[in-house]
Amino acid sequence: MQKKQIHIQDDFWNHYSELVRQTVIPYQWEALNDRIEGAEPSHAIRNFKIAAGLAKGEFGGWVFQDSDLYKWLEAVAYSLRRHPDPELEKISDEAIDLIGQAQHDNGYLNTYFTIKEPGKQWTNLYEAHELYCAGHLIEAAVAYYEATGKRKLLDLSCRFADLIATLFGTEPGQIKAYCGHQEIELALVKLYGVTGEERYLNLSRYFIDERGNEPNYFMEEWESGGRTSIWSQGMPNLEVYQCHLPVREQTVAIGHSVRAVYMYTAKADLARLTEDVGLREACERLWSNTTGKQMYITGGIGSTHHGEAFTLDYDLPNDTVYAETCASIGLIFWARRMLQLEAKSEYADVMERALYNNVLGSMSKDGKHFFYVNPLEVWPEASRKNPDRHHVKPVRQKWFGCSCCPPNVARLLCSLNDYIYDVSDDGRTVYTHLFIGSKASFELGGVIVTLHQRSELPWSGHAQLSVSLPEGEACAAFEMALRIPDWFQSERPTLKVNGEMQLYRVENGYAKVDRNWLDGDTLEWLLPMEAKLIAAHPLIRADAGKVAIQRGPLVYCLEEADNGAPITSLALAEEPNLTEYAAQNLLGGCVIVEGDGVVTDHTSWSDGKPYRPFTKQRTAVRFKSIPYYLWGNRQPGEMSVWLQS
Amino acid sequence: MQKKQIHIQDDFWNHYSELVRQTVIPYQWEALNDRIEGAEPSHAIRNFKIAAGLAKGEFGGWVFQDSDLYKWLEAVAYSLRRHPDPELEKISDEAIDLIGQAQHDNGYLNTYFTIKEPGKQWTNLYEAHELYCAGHLIEAAVAYYEATGKRKLLDLSCRFADLIATLFGTEPGQIKAYCGHQEIELALVKLYGVTGEERYLNLSRYFIDERGNEPNYFMEEWESGGRTSIWSQGMPNLEVYQCHLPVREQTVAIGHSVRAVYMYTAKADLARLTEDVGLREACERLWSNTTGKQMYITGGIGSTHHGEAFTLDYDLPNDTVYAETCASIGLIFWARRMLQLEAKSEYADVMERALYNNVLGSMSKDGKHFFYVNPLEVWPEASRKNPDRHHVKPVRQKWFGCSCCPPNVARLLCSLNDYIYDVSDDGRTVYTHLFIGSKASFELGGVIVTLHQRSELPWSGHAQLSVSLPEGEACAAFEMALRIPDWFQSERPTLKVNGEMQLYRVENGYAKVDRNWLDGDTLEWLLPMEAKLIAAHPLIRADAGKVAIQRGPLVYCLEEADNGAPITSLALAEEPNLTEYAAQNLLGGCVIVEGDGVVTDHTSWSDGKPYRPFTKQRTAVRFKSIPYYLWGNRQPGEMSVWLQS
Repeated sequence: MQKKQIHIQDDFWNHYSELVRQTVIPYQWEALNDRIEGAEPSHAIRNFKIAAGLAKGEFGGWVFQDSDLYKWLEAVAYSLRRHPDPELEKISDEAIDLIGQAQHDNGYLNTYFTIKEPGKQWTNLYEAHELYCAGHLIEAAVAYYEATGKRKLLDLSCRFADLIATLFGTEPGQIKAYCGHQEIELALVKLYGVTGEERYLNLSRYFIDERGNEPNYFMEEWESGGRTSIWSQGMPNLEVYQCHLPVREQTVAIGHSVRAVYMYTAKADLARLTEDVGLREACERLWSNTTGKQMYITGGIGSTHHGEAFTLDYDLPNDTVYAETCASIGLIFWARRMLQLEAKSEYADVMERALYNNVLGSMSKDGKHFFYVNPLEVWPEASRKNPDRHHVKPVRQKWFGCSCCPPNVARLLCSLNDYIYDVSDDGRTVYTHLFIGSKASFELGGVIVTLHQRSELPWSGHAQLSVSLPEGEACAAFEMALRIPDWFQSERPTLKVNGEMQLYRVENGYAKVDRNWLDGDTLEWLLPMEAKLIAAHPLIRADAGKVAIQRGPLVYCLEEADNGAPITSLALAEEPNLTEYAAQNLLGGCVIVEGDGVVTDHTSWSDGKPYRPFTKQRTAVRFKSIPYYLWGNRQPGEMSVWLQS
Repeated sequence: MQKKQIHIQDDFWNHYSELVRQTVIPYQWEALNDRIEGAEPSHAIRNFKIAAGLAKGEFGGWVFQDSDLYKWLEAVAYSLRRHPDPELEKISDEAIDLIGQAQHDNGYLNTYFTIKEPGKQWTNLYEAHELYCAGHLIEAAVAYYEATGKRKLLDLSCRFADLIATLFGTEPGQIKAYCGHQEIELALVKLYGVTGEERYLNLSRYFIDERGNEPNYFMEEWESGGRTSIWSQGMPNLEVYQCHLPVREQTVAIGHSVRAVYMYTAKADLARLTEDVGLREACERLWSNTTGKQMYITGGIGSTHHGEAFTLDYDLPNDTVYAETCASIGLIFWARRMLQLEAKSEYADVMERALYNNVLGSMSKDGKHFFYVNPLEVWPEASRKNPDRHHVKPVRQKWFGCSCCPPNVARLLCSLNDYIYDVSDDGRTVYTHLFIGSKASFELGGVIVTLHQRSELPWSGHAQLSVSLPEGEACAAFEMALRIPDWFQSERPTLKVNGEMQLYRVENGYAKVDRNWLDGDTLEWLLPMEAKLIAAHPLIRADAGKVAIQRGPLVYCLEEADNGAPITSLALAEEPNLTEYAAQNLLGGCVIVEGDGVVTDHTSWSDGKPYRPFTKQRTAVRFKSIPYYLWGNRQPGEMSVWLQS
């Protein structure tokens, strides 16, 4: 599949890629240079200058601060691929030069250890994120090379990767270990992809195979390091770092959620590339657990801010939630790899859910403010005054001291074109996973086929694909496979070819039509949308007795701005009579869902008593819900995804 | 009022005072001596032995460990008052001898500073609990003197209090400060009460008056101490310690809940004894805020384990709750003092609510296991696996490293006789606050009157008071004032005198009958009980759409043992048809409340999906609820006070 030949042309998504290009990338460059007034300084560029000997000073920020620059460069690369921009490329080239100047002669590259702990390289794999940063360097290098053809960052990444390959492994004198924060595993797969060098694939597999073996490396490191640590966390918590068990034996998503899904992504890559059945089965088990029992309706994962972690099956509190932006992005990475392992619609369903809700909601309309934590229920005063909720911000922040999320959003939104299609290994079937307007070319049935997709998502369930063939080609024999989304729960959706109803077979959640396609053939995919009430599994205690509203891929929420406070007082009426309409002027234009509700009037509680005999007396109201991804773009207020049923 | 002449004789409460006498006190003595297998060691007695020079070793336990012995001695004193026990008294006398041996020549007494930080006395008032421990010493001394007439502990307490009075105050050379944990303020009032020495009252008032003044003492102490602290907590959090504002200016309950209510208790004492209108108004404001907006239906206070603290108005999460046992005990202390300021039934209502629910529920049926945190909703697996709930234990613990609660329960349950009655200052009115079977004598209208109370609470709302006069007294003219409980919400309750209906006037929530009482007169107070559904104020977001069951003073809960899991799946039926019956063999005998409910069946969710379209389909069930105070006495399981309405 030739990834470079997929270009997004979509009313809904063009806005975001342009926002990233015109606003997010320049804004984040300012942030990396500590030039955003009122935001926490990044220190990232300054650290590189100090490490390169171009400036004096102390290391600033977190041990993994380098990765922010790398993720920004990766986003830039994707943006350049779509929209060449010589000025931006010049800035990036200079940043790459700076990175090169900070690299040691032996290939080593990490500003924290260069500035702050020289000589201590590789002595704190548990906490210090050296391999993690190397992974982001590699990802950026691969993307930058693919976008621009320039090898400088790629070459220096290979030198670093080669150094790592000599240092880590099972040979005598090598370190038998892995990184506290998984990331390099998936990056090395990409490096293998672009260079064809199997040693990178093998190194990735080594890190996966080594993880969780006994005796545990992190325990030994902690003992030999005098039982101290950078963050004084005490004895390593192996579950948080997913090294409590060998990777193949893990069955339940546990620990730090971003680490987990980055690792699962690499596992799925390796399962596919090395045809490793054990790894594949582990991926499938973990997928089933993560998305079946530990995922919020918004596609968020991670139920506690302690360790930014998974907790236990069905524990999905809405108010003390974590649902970190990066975790949902990682879930999308993983879903993408699962689709490459096997085209099953459930993978794309989760990808779509996380994308349109948790991830899209993490960024403000202006592209300059971000959520790290993506709650499903917010009470702003409690976020201020109850320490259990300090991590839940009712307003998107300008930048974070630990700012992993904003550049991660940027790199995902700039590379969405890679998530729309797959072509089967035999070159016979093209799968459409996401309904995003685009122009794409693939070799299908021996012919270079161009597909123009037009889509009205997320507002209307109508997508159209038209086939263009090269001049001289009369037809092309291949199979079109269109995802039947999980939110379309009526009878089979209607598929038309050239305006005529078309029968199709369904396999793994995809509608499949195999025929000789002619130039100009069009295929229409009709998925009429309506707002639906959704219930959560009864074992999800936090959602008991509640419903959410979903319309197409979009989960809805209720805001104080539309419904007053406390938002929790609102319950669905016996007959909710949901209606919907397009509000052109609200939040940049969106479809609003209204319904009949009842509310408990707190003004009648005049005697200062917190408890009194229960009555059923409630007042009828009409409530208004907006797409979740748009919440928090007006004045701060209460918000809830779930309302009483 | 002659407190010593109130003796409890009550079917319900005798069990508890005997449990404390026969089990809790001996068990806690073993715990203080580190002889409970499998429980965290207390170190308390050992610390005193080391400080007294009778043993060698390091200080063990918390800085405030001494207070556990003092609270135990206080409980012993109350028990001896009710039930003389020469053997127990001998053990206590020996413990007092040991305390005396640990006292310094100048009166100073604290094993932490004697053993671990000699020379550092009074340098860490913010954290080190020196005055707090002194307060518990004084409370124990007053109680022991009143119970036994023995002065040894009282005298050594006075010596220590006198030392403190020379060290603290506004004179040149004195420390202008107060304790990080309020306690000594209320203890000094008791010392004044038993000695009549005004200097103790003045010292108490000084600590209250000084607290929260600018410049803040704790900030200065922290700066001068090199910005370090025992627990490395960073800069003092003044709100947690209620010294963010002068005490009179505080309007909202904030910070560590036990510190808060201990301070409010002293404030109410001082407001009464010094006729300080400003303090009284502050007490009334704080009462209204605490009990109107920050109290759980069980009488629990404290909404977060971070700082064991209040959070904000109406923030009462049931699952991440704190509701520390000691905090409800402190609330009872405070309510008692508010009643002495002014006999208003709302104070006694809260006292009763906290006593019968939060406090009574903190101890197991066997008297050997205790809750520190008293949740309103428990999911045992989440308590283990979600760090946000690690503090919520599904099973009572044997003893705690920080074991403030168990001895606090013991001293309260042994001194309940002090909470039943008040006589007005003019000696004309006797108030019955609590319906607890007892024999009490007071001087009323110039005559020594004995009241026998018989009560069927908490199972039946029937209490009877009979009047006995001394031989030779024909009658006594006084007013009987009976509390109308907040849980009796029908028309006026029926009051009978000698079997005849009696009219009465109502004042401040008390039914009042003023007459010439004859020997043998009986008064019956009829408060028919039935299970009621209770709603929470709509601003209490955590209880939105839910109801609790209350019967008389007892709040009920649903346990997994009776209703299966998840308990959250259960909702009240449209017509709940509550019924009740006495279950003699369940949990030692109690009244069970059953009702009609509906439940969502999770076995129908077979496809591993966490979300699906909402249907109203639910299964009818009959649910069973038990008194909250009895929860957790069977196998560990889910529990909830609130159920979906």
